[in-house]
Amino acid sequence: MAWNTMQMDREERTVQDRIIYSRHDPAIRRLRNLQSREGRERTGQFLIEGIRPLAQAVRQGERVEMLVVAPQLLTNALGRRLVKQLRIAGTPCCRLTPEVYHSLSQAEDPQGVAAVMKQRWENIEQVRPSRGLCWLAVEAVQSAGNLGTILRTSEAVGGSGVILIGDTVDPYDPTTVRASMGALFNQKFVRATAAAFGAWKQRHQCLLVGASPSATLDYKAVAYPASLVLLMGGEKKGVSPEIQSLCDTMVKIPMVGRGDSLNLAIAAGILLYEVFDQRRAVRDGAVE
Amino acid sequence: MAWNTMQMDREERTVQDRIIYSRHDPAIRRLRNLQSREGRERTGQFLIEGIRPLAQAVRQGERVEMLVVAPQLLTNALGRRLVKQLRIAGTPCCRLTPEVYHSLSQAEDPQGVAAVMKQRWENIEQVRPSRGLCWLAVEAVQSAGNLGTILRTSEAVGGSGVILIGDTVDPYDPTTVRASMGALFNQKFVRATAAAFGAWKQRHQCLLVGASPSATLDYKAVAYPASLVLLMGGEKKGVSPEIQSLCDTMVKIPMVGRGDSLNLAIAAGILLYEVFDQRRAVRDGAVE
Repeated sequence: MAWNTMQMDREERTVQDRIIYSRHDPAIRRLRNLQSREGRERTGQFLIEGIRPLAQAVRQGERVEMLVVAPQLLTNALGRRLVKQLRIAGTPCCRLTPEVYHSLSQAEDPQGVAAVMKQRWENIEQVRPSRGLCWLAVEAVQSAGNLGTILRTSEAVGGSGVILIGDTVDPYDPTTVRASMGALFNQKFVRATAAAFGAWKQRHQCLLVGASPSATLDYKAVAYPASLVLLMGGEKKGVSPEIQSLCDTMVKIPMVGRGDSLNLAIAAGILLYEVFDQRRAVRDGAVE
Repeated sequence: MAWNTMQMDREERTVQDRIIYSRHDPAIRRLRNLQSREGRERTGQFLIEGIRPLAQAVRQGERVEMLVVAPQLLTNALGRRLVKQLRIAGTPCCRLTPEVYHSLSQAEDPQGVAAVMKQRWENIEQVRPSRGLCWLAVEAVQSAGNLGTILRTSEAVGGSGVILIGDTVDPYDPTTVRASMGALFNQKFVRATAAAFGAWKQRHQCLLVGASPSATLDYKAVAYPASLVLLMGGEKKGVSPEIQSLCDTMVKIPMVGRGDSLNLAIAAGILLYEVFDQRRAVRDGAVE
């Protein structure tokens, strides 16, 4: 069979997918389940929504498990091309009326395309602390938006990923996915108990630097090594005593105002850029 | 009348305030109006919610126009003391049943106390660019959370306040107020059209530094003077050509990832901390 014929057959087949008219259709219930953490953990899947995240996923070679399209809402040419390309490549597609799509969408101005993706998790044993700029570890982070913003900044400076310790928000939460602006496809995720993280730390040569407003050492006074884990505590309680006892050093970001802390994602961003700036100063110095 | 008697009279009077049982009561409608920008702008008031923001407001000498209390929800001792102190000082108080309070509250776990405050705005003519660490100017910022986080960081480094150019989110939006974590009481706010900002810039000696991912100059290559305005564009379109033409220089924050920009509040935080670090290096150098 010639390639052109095969392509047309596939297009024919996908164009003939049934359209879902009811928000109570089992397929819609399965998609809606992915908006809850329980549903995501049971299936190992998550949802991305919008043309831009989908384009990023495809560009990074992520496998799209299923497209979710409201053809009447998907008017953008790039979006249509992307969907066509994925359908030709054999990606299953679920087609929805605008009403059903709206009932599912969390976007303010839905673009008519979403996708079911597969979660990626690494085991803590796979974490090599010398890889990339550094690793982040976060403990008990509550805000999905903060975690997404942290992923976005980590990706921007070449960070490897995030070790999620204890009861921390899900990186595949729709709010985290949205705030990460596609960075989650380029970051590794590891879940660990405090004990497993402590055991890993004992077996690996790295500097573990915790951040706390009550530390005495200024974050700029540390020479950050290539094998580095930056640890951020949660919004409410900061770094727990158990995790703090694992840290090689604690640093603070100085403040002169009346507030007692910075936003968590801001603190992570300032630390990440300090490490990034030290590293590029070394690199630029070596080149000159 | 002895002070004690007067105090008791006042307590008597306030304790006898009527309790509002209906969410359709005109007083509740007026409070609910403060959740919309239109209602806030018409009255020049805004709402704060929770014990911590109220305590910060009182500590900073802000005048509370009216307390909103659900006595059955307000179980925290500090919160009760604060309310008592304000009522003794003559602050009007509106008492609500828990149900009515819940209908008004935007908190996940309402503490049973909110307050109506008066907005403060300065005229652009009052802006002295040499005051504090620097001023921020923001253009067309869309996210109330981003603006609140920017206020929190600006307050932390001793920034003076924010000049809001064009169609920018309201700093008295409940989400901004919450994200600022009390910093808004310590920051000045100015609204300006692009033209008014341009005219102000012409009359004042200062360095106006705009931030853009497409700039060529690295943010660390600039020696930031004491008279400084940092300008951030909106999340979607960045700095407009009109405002960019007013800037003395544009800087970028370098990135090595696949993303094309940082979160706006992160970018503002990194620039603010660079200015702060340069300033403290000068100060510490002068002391040594």
